[in-house]
Amino acid sequence: MSFNIEDYLQRRKETVDRTLREYLPPDKPKTRLHQAIAYSLYPGGKRLRPVLCLAASELICGDYRNALPVASAIEMIHTYSIIHDDLPSMDNDDIRRGKPSNHRVFGEAVATLAGDALLTDAFYLITEKLFEEGVSPELILHVISIISEAAGSEGMVLGQMFDLEIDRHRPFCVDKISDVYLMKTAKMIIASILSGAILAGAKEKELLKLKSYSEKIGIAFQIKDDILDIAENKDEIQKSLDKTKTDTHTYVSVIGIEKSEAKVLELTNQAIDELKSFGKTPNPLIEIANWLRERKE
Amino acid sequence: MSFNIEDYLQRRKETVDRTLREYLPPDKPKTRLHQAIAYSLYPGGKRLRPVLCLAASELICGDYRNALPVASAIEMIHTYSIIHDDLPSMDNDDIRRGKPSNHRVFGEAVATLAGDALLTDAFYLITEKLFEEGVSPELILHVISIISEAAGSEGMVLGQMFDLEIDRHRPFCVDKISDVYLMKTAKMIIASILSGAILAGAKEKELLKLKSYSEKIGIAFQIKDDILDIAENKDEIQKSLDKTKTDTHTYVSVIGIEKSEAKVLELTNQAIDELKSFGKTPNPLIEIANWLRERKE
Repeated sequence: MSFNIEDYLQRRKETVDRTLREYLPPDKPKTRLHQAIAYSLYPGGKRLRPVLCLAASELICGDYRNALPVASAIEMIHTYSIIHDDLPSMDNDDIRRGKPSNHRVFGEAVATLAGDALLTDAFYLITEKLFEEGVSPELILHVISIISEAAGSEGMVLGQMFDLEIDRHRPFCVDKISDVYLMKTAKMIIASILSGAILAGAKEKELLKLKSYSEKIGIAFQIKDDILDIAENKDEIQKSLDKTKTDTHTYVSVIGIEKSEAKVLELTNQAIDELKSFGKTPNPLIEIANWLRERKE
Repeated sequence: MSFNIEDYLQRRKETVDRTLREYLPPDKPKTRLHQAIAYSLYPGGKRLRPVLCLAASELICGDYRNALPVASAIEMIHTYSIIHDDLPSMDNDDIRRGKPSNHRVFGEAVATLAGDALLTDAFYLITEKLFEEGVSPELILHVISIISEAAGSEGMVLGQMFDLEIDRHRPFCVDKISDVYLMKTAKMIIASILSGAILAGAKEKELLKLKSYSEKIGIAFQIKDDILDIAENKDEIQKSLDKTKTDTHTYVSVIGIEKSEAKVLELTNQAIDELKSFGKTPNPLIEIANWLRERKE
């Protein structure tokens, strides 16, 4: 039977959704804070980060169940980052996943608090649920360390800071953009994959390869997002390519769509190469890398 | 030699400051994000929560050094909560500790990110530093669990949510106000004291007494703050007492200054009673409870 990546992603996404709903029941939230949390957490998007976490766990030990609490916590952290990034003082986005963004519905104060709560509760969830499951305390600490480092002032938050500070009216080099993408997007993708692998008992050598894979698909993912953004807003292509007028802060705006697509392909292939020595076929992480490159949304 | 509480608090505060400066050097911050973090972290206030954490550790094992990383992390979480609470969409405070609040200097976006980073980095610090010090992983997890629960959607963040939702133009009962104070203030004070005690090897019975002590001084602390707020703004006393016109959401505005002071005394004495069986004299936590009740600012 051949491996169907769409099926695979759908099944894992459903598992993540089921676990999240168990930990944070979306029905009858107790307070307006809990309502706001549920609003952004459900129905959610692709659940890419938790699915990568599960896939990494599966690659190492053939099972992914141990990683479910961490996968859920990672989605909570991703959701917090989206709520805060959408705030008027940040990216000022009114729409997220086809519906009004959190602050448009609940107001800025509640949206800020919902993000704060999701971030904090994520650490509580990892600690409590993994301990209940009998995971070794050392491994739990390793996972908390990796995730908090990736999400904090040397990771995702710094990436959002870089993004805010970019002077959108000056030319911008590709290396600097890669740095922003690494911080803003890839660091949490790396943490998702490593934490799944660590809980499955991955060896140091395996973690190094997975780290390199994750970094490459993390940056490729963000470049692909830029390309899709352009495709979605065709009217704005010319505007985006006109460096004297507008944004110069994406890969596409600096090197154009064609070269950006070539870069995504190059990074994807390099990422896949890192995983060949694992010997497993089909390898879900290889399939996911190709799927991410080819996706249309 | 008699115990001088002012000296004691000053010495412990200096130790906390020294440790924070070691972990988060205030000089030459790398980015504007790190500048914003340092701006709110230094020079800081009384450092009450970390000092309580150290005092609890000291009460149990005679030493407080093990608790220094957690004490620092607790101050980082407290600082994050202050930065976010001051935001225009929340309490909209322009001044904090005698200087412009974080968002007045760095803007709302950077202030939001500085808070996010402090909260996240606090968990990284606890995990890494306690592990480096050779603290048992089980104890580290216990501390992370207690702190994340106290700070999250069932603790401090929920308290801030309650505070935002209070209808300031309707009479308000004392029990509801106590609930808000428990969530908003006391939960993190409880977590500070318990985490110090846990790291020092406190037994379950000791933790129960310390929890009861912490809850009482946590609520007393917030009522005392209300009383001091009124004293600072004498012109506004009448306004605050006039329920038809203004706030009805503090202890003082509902039951008046005299009864509020009696409540602070009652809670303080109950808290102190919980600690008598520890037998230690002087007991810094007893001295701190009395000092908190008598403080003038």
